[in-house]
Amino acid sequence: MTNTMKAMVYHGANDLRFEECPKPKILNPTDAIIKLTKTTICGTDLGILKGKNPEIEETAKKKEKHFSGRILGHEGIGIVEEVGAAVTNFKKGDKVIISCISRCGTCENCQKQLYAHCLNGGGWILGYMINGTQAEYVRTPYADNSLYLLPEGLNEDVAVLLSDALPTAHEIGVQYGDVKPGDSVAIIGAGPVGMGCLLTAQLYSPSEIILVDVDDNRLAMAREMGATQVINSGKENAVEKIRELTNGRGVDCAIEAVGIEATWDVCQKIVKEGGHLANVGVHGKSVNFSLEKLWIKNLTITTGLVNANTTGMLMKTCCSGTLPMDKLATHHFKFDELPKAYDVFKHAADEKAMKVIINL
Amino acid sequence: MTNTMKAMVYHGANDLRFEECPKPKILNPTDAIIKLTKTTICGTDLGILKGKNPEIEETAKKKEKHFSGRILGHEGIGIVEEVGAAVTNFKKGDKVIISCISRCGTCENCQKQLYAHCLNGGGWILGYMINGTQAEYVRTPYADNSLYLLPEGLNEDVAVLLSDALPTAHEIGVQYGDVKPGDSVAIIGAGPVGMGCLLTAQLYSPSEIILVDVDDNRLAMAREMGATQVINSGKENAVEKIRELTNGRGVDCAIEAVGIEATWDVCQKIVKEGGHLANVGVHGKSVNFSLEKLWIKNLTITTGLVNANTTGMLMKTCCSGTLPMDKLATHHFKFDELPKAYDVFKHAADEKAMKVIINL
Amino acid sequence: MTNTMKAMVYHGANDLRFEECPKPKILNPTDAIIKLTKTTICGTDLGILKGKNPEIEETAKKKEKHFSGRILGHEGIGIVEEVGAAVTNFKKGDKVIISCISRCGTCENCQKQLYAHCLNGGGWILGYMINGTQAEYVRTPYADNSLYLLPEGLNEDVAVLLSDALPTAHEIGVQYGDVKPGDSVAIIGAGPVGMGCLLTAQLYSPSEIILVDVDDNRLAMAREMGATQVINSGKENAVEKIRELTNGRGVDCAIEAVGIEATWDVCQKIVKEGGHLANVGVHGKSVNFSLEKLWIKNLTITTGLVNANTTGMLMKTCCSGTLPMDKLATHHFKFDELPKAYDVFKHAADEKAMKVIINL
Amino acid sequence: MTNTMKAMVYHGANDLRFEECPKPKILNPTDAIIKLTKTTICGTDLGILKGKNPEIEETAKKKEKHFSGRILGHEGIGIVEEVGAAVTNFKKGDKVIISCISRCGTCENCQKQLYAHCLNGGGWILGYMINGTQAEYVRTPYADNSLYLLPEGLNEDVAVLLSDALPTAHEIGVQYGDVKPGDSVAIIGAGPVGMGCLLTAQLYSPSEIILVDVDDNRLAMAREMGATQVINSGKENAVEKIRELTNGRGVDCAIEAVGIEATWDVCQKIVKEGGHLANVGVHGKSVNFSLEKLWIKNLTITTGLVNANTTGMLMKTCCSGTLPMDKLATHHFKFDELPKAYDVFKHAADEKAMKVIINL
Repeated sequence: MTNTMKAMVYHGANDLRFEECPKPKILNPTDAIIKLTKTTICGTDLGILKGKNPEIEETAKKKEKHFSGRILGHEGIGIVEEVGAAVTNFKKGDKVIISCISRCGTCENCQKQLYAHCLNGGGWILGYMINGTQAEYVRTPYADNSLYLLPEGLNEDVAVLLSDALPTAHEIGVQYGDVKPGDSVAIIGAGPVGMGCLLTAQLYSPSEIILVDVDDNRLAMAREMGATQVINSGKENAVEKIRELTNGRGVDCAIEAVGIEATWDVCQKIVKEGGHLANVGVHGKSVNFSLEKLWIKNLTITTGLVNANTTGMLMKTCCSGTLPMDKLATHHFKFDELPKAYDVFKHAADEKAMKVIINL
Repeated sequence: MTNTMKAMVYHGANDLRFEECPKPKILNPTDAIIKLTKTTICGTDLGILKGKNPEIEETAKKKEKHFSGRILGHEGIGIVEEVGAAVTNFKKGDKVIISCISRCGTCENCQKQLYAHCLNGGGWILGYMINGTQAEYVRTPYADNSLYLLPEGLNEDVAVLLSDALPTAHEIGVQYGDVKPGDSVAIIGAGPVGMGCLLTAQLYSPSEIILVDVDDNRLAMAREMGATQVINSGKENAVEKIRELTNGRGVDCAIEAVGIEATWDVCQKIVKEGGHLANVGVHGKSVNFSLEKLWIKNLTITTGLVNANTTGMLMKTCCSGTLPMDKLATHHFKFDELPKAYDVFKHAADEKAMKVIINL
Repeated sequence: MTNTMKAMVYHGANDLRFEECPKPKILNPTDAIIKLTKTTICGTDLGILKGKNPEIEETAKKKEKHFSGRILGHEGIGIVEEVGAAVTNFKKGDKVIISCISRCGTCENCQKQLYAHCLNGGGWILGYMINGTQAEYVRTPYADNSLYLLPEGLNEDVAVLLSDALPTAHEIGVQYGDVKPGDSVAIIGAGPVGMGCLLTAQLYSPSEIILVDVDDNRLAMAREMGATQVINSGKENAVEKIRELTNGRGVDCAIEAVGIEATWDVCQKIVKEGGHLANVGVHGKSVNFSLEKLWIKNLTITTGLVNANTTGMLMKTCCSGTLPMDKLATHHFKFDELPKAYDVFKHAADEKAMKVIINL
Repeated sequence: MTNTMKAMVYHGANDLRFEECPKPKILNPTDAIIKLTKTTICGTDLGILKGKNPEIEETAKKKEKHFSGRILGHEGIGIVEEVGAAVTNFKKGDKVIISCISRCGTCENCQKQLYAHCLNGGGWILGYMINGTQAEYVRTPYADNSLYLLPEGLNEDVAVLLSDALPTAHEIGVQYGDVKPGDSVAIIGAGPVGMGCLLTAQLYSPSEIILVDVDDNRLAMAREMGATQVINSGKENAVEKIRELTNGRGVDCAIEAVGIEATWDVCQKIVKEGGHLANVGVHGKSVNFSLEKLWIKNLTITTGLVNANTTGMLMKTCCSGTLPMDKLATHHFKFDELPKAYDVFKHAADEKAMKVIINL
């Protein structure tokens, strides 16, 4: 048995290599080693690749004096290969979903269920501060708190979406946006997370879900996944159209699922007084906030990284199978084709791709 | 008995006249006429005076073809002089607190307790869209929903604060800011509303309340009213000092009680992950929102105009007298001195004034 | 035009007469007179008929010295015939849904949205403390707060269910029971309200809804309306069966929709630690509460009369038509057949009846 | 260094022995051993002593074939003597508060913050299913999740109350009872937990707190600790008196802090429509629940064992020192006097005792 494995390694901006690396080992008694069976690529991975996260190299250099690359990926399912001495909920051979969030479970933030901000070295670390899941094996810290037993009968492509895409959409978009029965909801951005918002919003039976994007293909998919209205903001004025669709009132909840000022701006213009604006998009720049108009509107604006505290609930919901979660998994690749999967995902709209599933 | 009365009338930017006007009359069966016994001046009144609300003239001209002046004031207590045919909760002679918010009680927004945005011509209209309380008499629409019987034994100066200052501070600052036992709270701005936040925050027993202002006198008052720490942001770097006071963690809740970008900016820099930023200040310009740093922080940011849905509760709390609400009423004037009261209030910090009470 | 009309009048226990009565008139400026187009019968009406509500006669005698009968019915839709001087939201000719709850909108309880307990003579009064809707015309007090404009395109049978059955099921069963995505729910009793719980629970996407009843026909209907499991408690031990279906854990939410000790007892035995028990049934006797076992279980047990504060939301949801609300309206009668409709409804299970709709 | 220690051991009903026992050892990597510096006695300990918890012997016999006694006690503070390999938040020498609730932090219930019902062998186990704190040393499972670093400056008697008494009162009484500013609250039973409710209720500024007990001394103490009214239910009819004090309306929140039917009955008779009844008392028998009167009242009734999820917050609040928590610690004993402390606590009312503190 060899001590090396294949993995997708980030070596710096625009320097991604699919190469041989050492297999991970248990470092702490709360760790587990997982043999991946499926993984995927996230928009955040593309961001890292573009050089948006220099803290990766900086932190590594501070800690270890040098940076020898980081295996990307924070999503996936697999089989438990080995567990540390303190792991009690999982054992070798268990099929598990890996959460993108690692949690100590005991710090001030974990006690508030704010796992995204675990103060004991948890939170989002996989494929970022430590090696990730685009590999044959991965070490998952705090395994008892950060893995989920894969339920029998659950579509395994959907299971991969439970690592990050669906919980992010549900918690940061739908729950923070306080989507309720009867509500009108507008989702700006029909990428994987926007689509995840579209799907998980339906758990709360809003009356209207309007999807806004610039890609007609994605809008057609949105219709199939339950959008009651779609707007191509490249062709129509989204703000005006949404006002029209809501009798001039605006929506109860606007979800920003892109991460640029233009889409933020649409959101701040379409929320009804007393409404919610849930920002899910990862922003690289500050935005203009029209407080001179909005101070009076009794708005609730939220931001956030997923806590993965609803992963268990979503898992149950996915098992019941009433929502077409599987439609988010549009493309499939073998592990050897990982570089190709990256190419497709980089041109997702053109390729009519949402999530690309890599099978090991 | 004369048909005219004295009142403080806004005729346009910087044109305020203390003059003789017609007494108000019942226009709708849900109206009441109140003989004022105490009124006060709000920061918003100064804003109108400066010309910040041209919609006052514009709306009047649209509706009535001309603008013959608007009596200012949306706060006060008085005695019911007359009620319309449909008013059942009040009768001539009742001593009442006038809420700054008029509510129909039946529209979509009123049914959500979003009274600030009553869709049937209510919300904040007194001293704005209709004549207000800086007068001998005022007409109050939707009287059954918009007046409160003055409880016996309640300090009448405090009663005046229940029209607007205390509910605004409590609802938009403290409740929207989700202040809880054990929390750390920073309030930026030690004017009447900031001080109202300081007082009403104590209803929820936060561990720490930090007041930030540029005026040492106001900060000294804040200490007396319960602040655990004060920072003169003219002399110290408020952001750094607050981080220091919170072990580098920031606060659970930041309350913006000024309405300018500089104070907003302090707020967005001092909120802990998972925390709340409650904007109470009335902003005249848009602000820069650092979403590139804050998208990840699981923040809740709120804005709003008071709904006055906690006025009844605050009234009970004021009656129990455990918090020094009366300290907010720093100056007293006779009705004839109303112009002088305006002068003092315009230079509130210099005059060591918070709220100025005008007795009729 | 005649001054009399036909109506179903309660004269005392077991004395119900379909007879000629005076038409109602506006008594207060907030009243409206509605010409009924559809009405229905509620289980509560049968209770009154059996003599369970002697307070009807007693209150009448106290107030008016004698009791000349009470027109039953608190559900229905119709056309506004006349409005009082203070009614502004409705006008002659409007098609409306009549809420079973009348609300002043201004009292302490109405301000808390606890409209069921309006302190100004509102709450449930129609067909109880004042004449009701099983008539050609009805006077509705507090019309601005207690009527809903019938939306175009809404199935009118479903509209009748919005008077009471659906809001009661939703608010007192589903909302008080805190039904959430992924939850397991057991509903004990498959009558109209239990079925309403089954339907409105689906707005929140629970993973499992178990219906328990003694009637196989009703259980078959429950399956069609979305139950994931059904139990005939006449043939199986419901408590054991529910434990089995939930891996011995019990349910997150148990809804009591009958009103007798036996069904209460099933509920208290099947709720998981941390779960909810929502009592919707109208009980005639006290029950045994196993606090010696349940003190430790962190349960939330609720009771209540509908507030009708979600009627507007349910109306929107019914318009979107995704849930088969119309299946609750099983039988239809002409107004002249009202006595026959009572006969059918008295033997609802045998007649395979849920709600009987009477068309005028 | 000896391997034995002194401890208070339960050997069966009415058989309590202060005797020499083996010192505890680390059994699991998540354990810690604490050298006690202070402990106390809980009403539950007296219940065990009376034979109310035969499951102690039964479970021991099932597991280990015999029952060799159980060291009582689930409260206390001490110094960390040793930690297991997986404990990372504490180290030898740390001064800690021991929570009465042990939590794995990872099971379904712990993920809902329902730590009282930890499914991995946690919950209330100390001095019940495993040896407890009335000893020189104690083993605490899941130490990372179940200990709190003792803050400098905190009164150490108060720290002992944070093990159980204050969190139980706060969570199961005050939070479940939804005590809010302006509320009227009645607490039935002025023992340690009732008094804890009285103290922690004040964190939320209710307008009125009525204490009911049969002991005048305790009622006098209640007055000192913040009760606005007290009722000796041995001398007055508590139900009538509470109605009188609340203008016939009843209270917003009734807290049952005794655990017998008579006090439950007072509670169910005094809660206002829409109000809360929080049961904190440990009941040995079922009670009569007047659903025939209460089905209509929109009540919320709760039960529960403490989750200790607010211990951290209460610790901060106790540090700020605004509430006289220390008054609950009425008596002090040396460790050798533990049997005498039991005697005093058994006759707490006569001895004017609340909590007895044992210093080691």
